[in-house]
Amino acid sequence: MSDTVKYILDETQIPKHWYNLVADLPTPPPPVLHPGTMQPVGPADLEPLFPMSLILQEVSTEREIEIPSPVRDIYRQWRPSPLYRARRLEKALDTPAKIYYKYEGVSPAGSHKPNTAIAQAFYNKEAGVKRISTETGAGQWGSSLALSGAFFGLEIEVFMVRVSYNQKPYRRALMESYGARCIASPSNETASGRAILEKRPDHPGSLGIAISEAVEVAAQRDDTKYALGSVLNHVLLHQTVIGQEAMLQMDMAGDAPDVVIACTGGGSNFAGISFPYIGQTLRGGRKTRILAVEPAACPSITKGKYAYDFGDTAHLTPLTKMHTLGSTFTPPGFHAGGLRYHGMAPLVSHCAELGLIEARSYHQLACFEAGVLFGRSEGILPAPEANHAVRGAIDEALRCKAEGKAETILFNLSGHGHFDMQSYTDYFAGKLTDLQYEDNELAMALAGLPSVPE
Amino acid sequence: MSDTVKYILDETQIPKHWYNLVADLPTPPPPVLHPGTMQPVGPADLEPLFPMSLILQEVSTEREIEIPSPVRDIYRQWRPSPLYRARRLEKALDTPAKIYYKYEGVSPAGSHKPNTAIAQAFYNKEAGVKRISTETGAGQWGSSLALSGAFFGLEIEVFMVRVSYNQKPYRRALMESYGARCIASPSNETASGRAILEKRPDHPGSLGIAISEAVEVAAQRDDTKYALGSVLNHVLLHQTVIGQEAMLQMDMAGDAPDVVIACTGGGSNFAGISFPYIGQTLRGGRKTRILAVEPAACPSITKGKYAYDFGDTAHLTPLTKMHTLGSTFTPPGFHAGGLRYHGMAPLVSHCAELGLIEARSYHQLACFEAGVLFGRSEGILPAPEANHAVRGAIDEALRCKAEGKAETILFNLSGHGHFDMQSYTDYFAGKLTDLQYEDNELAMALAGLPSVPE
Repeated sequence: MSDTVKYILDETQIPKHWYNLVADLPTPPPPVLHPGTMQPVGPADLEPLFPMSLILQEVSTEREIEIPSPVRDIYRQWRPSPLYRARRLEKALDTPAKIYYKYEGVSPAGSHKPNTAIAQAFYNKEAGVKRISTETGAGQWGSSLALSGAFFGLEIEVFMVRVSYNQKPYRRALMESYGARCIASPSNETASGRAILEKRPDHPGSLGIAISEAVEVAAQRDDTKYALGSVLNHVLLHQTVIGQEAMLQMDMAGDAPDVVIACTGGGSNFAGISFPYIGQTLRGGRKTRILAVEPAACPSITKGKYAYDFGDTAHLTPLTKMHTLGSTFTPPGFHAGGLRYHGMAPLVSHCAELGLIEARSYHQLACFEAGVLFGRSEGILPAPEANHAVRGAIDEALRCKAEGKAETILFNLSGHGHFDMQSYTDYFAGKLTDLQYEDNELAMALAGLPSVPE
Repeated sequence: MSDTVKYILDETQIPKHWYNLVADLPTPPPPVLHPGTMQPVGPADLEPLFPMSLILQEVSTEREIEIPSPVRDIYRQWRPSPLYRARRLEKALDTPAKIYYKYEGVSPAGSHKPNTAIAQAFYNKEAGVKRISTETGAGQWGSSLALSGAFFGLEIEVFMVRVSYNQKPYRRALMESYGARCIASPSNETASGRAILEKRPDHPGSLGIAISEAVEVAAQRDDTKYALGSVLNHVLLHQTVIGQEAMLQMDMAGDAPDVVIACTGGGSNFAGISFPYIGQTLRGGRKTRILAVEPAACPSITKGKYAYDFGDTAHLTPLTKMHTLGSTFTPPGFHAGGLRYHGMAPLVSHCAELGLIEARSYHQLACFEAGVLFGRSEGILPAPEANHAVRGAIDEALRCKAEGKAETILFNLSGHGHFDMQSYTDYFAGKLTDLQYEDNELAMALAGLPSVPE
């Protein structure tokens, strides 16, 4: 048997609980601070933005949080997602390593994002919310929340970074197909948007600005809450179905990973596959290396500072301690839009500080090269974000080859590239280059971090 | 349980044989004729174009043809494909009907086409072929053959209708990602292409012209064969895995379809889901209605003539008896490019003549409306081609509602619309209209049919 092998679970094996890594950590993550008082925020502070059920998940220290059955019923449409052994890729690399990948592109929106979007829509619906506002960059998150809104009968308003709104009409069309309203950000619909447009009417927007607009809208309307697609604890929590399933599937394969790899932007797909493995190690089980792969043009873990910072540009969010490039840092326009965020999930950052994970960064050309090799070998063309994980997995497999080691590599293929074909077109036309941020811009953004008393 | 239900088979339940409807037909389909002699073609006549194993399948009267294990090994990456009960769509329609759909968009190329592309690539590789030439319109077929070429180490040359080549750069990027060479047709690489460009240098191309170019290239080079993505018996044969799996899945659901629905362009996805059901009926089993849905702008079954015709524009192919609009007929540029072919598969046409199937046509706006409702209900945004099947299924469900009947409807969702988002963008912008061919153009094309002695 030399061909790619698929490991499929029965739908009764969809996890019944999300796994909360906080329960197993040796020290708790630092508290979230109110930017006015510099005191830890309480659940009431977050109530204008989120339903209480999600706030309680955000601060929970329970190891297992039950997945509501209406959420599992919808998960069943595409979950358990398949896990593959990439035999054809192994052969192409001529490596003794065994390469497995968990494929999250089977969701209707094409990425792991619906794992949390469905859950967030459920809890909002349950709390009587009528409308959810959010932001999106590349559009993976916006389309996943739009899908979830269609399923639960919620209005979805998506503030889409203007440059993506104009350059990615197909992601927008997908959101609109699901019935969502899509607004180019900065917009005239919010004070934060208007303030920016006043200074610069043609402002291309940024994820930080779009977050400000979506948060502002939710804070001002009684029937509207806000949803975030990554970074927060409860978002990472919802993604742990990925790693829990992968563990069962690796058991089916009679194997276990020596290293688990995922790309990191805000950190949610990375947390999804890795947290169950980190927890296993922390509870005294098998030790697994965990490798986060980030873009060299927006390298929050590898080049950022571990400090308190805002999640948005207008500074409407609480302060969280995380690896950050500074909330005013604008990453260059590389093609993995889902990884273009100045900060890293506080929980992922905390793991990095505790030495539980490694991080590495790659420029985009090396990632596209890896993605094309993967596509030709395995048939699935990855999203530019996922190409970072593919690059990491290939380099680990090549290291195994050089060292003559038959290690087992598992990576998360977080989504397909069907809505990102312009980037492949540009890659083949030789129009793509490796983008680098300006050192002094990073220094300025880091110098502008809010000062928080020890 | 009010949510969408998924019926999943074990991979041991991937069919071990393709099902050949010819074995169960009361009368055999009319022979294929050599256009020079007007005599039935023999296997040797087809040898310049196809490997002998496929030619023997083309003329086989055996009921079951074994699927080679390397083909099944690759099928396993996405097969058995899921079958869903569309409970959310049923609810949206408030119908007593039960609606099931078989989803073929789970293949790496996003449609049913790899079912035959993988098989054809296997047999060509086995025969020592180095290169396969083919044509593509919308790009579903070209990308599926490109994928298969990557898996089997074959060079793939795709003549892509020029207007699609220019308007659909993303399908082209997918083909190139898989390593295929993509040529805008008409091209300077063939005599048939040059002849057309000489008369009209800016010719937009057509599927008939692209077929001529691909056939010419294969006929002239010893190391090159030709592959077709629909129409021919062996292509339809390979698609019967769809219907065979669906039967097992409907058994799992404890149900059986009263009507089976699919869209028809060349006829392959329609044959794939329906032929096993037609065979069941012919062998004295449960009677099932079979409904072919075609575009009103290219209505070969409902408005064409059942006559011998060429498969291509330059008249390089043999003559087959089929429902045809005439090989010189140019359908208007509606968005379901995969259905823009002047002829219907001879075997499907023969079934229509025998009264084994019904046919119906729809204009594109009604199909997009159906596709958007389906997307909001079920989460999957269908390809414009598949929207025709969705429209048919919805109208059957609405008929059931009007008649108060709880019938069971099964349709084939042949592919997703991820590479067709421009059409949805146009639809939402109100830019789409229902296109109609010119009556006199159809009359002229039909008048030009080759005269074949009785």
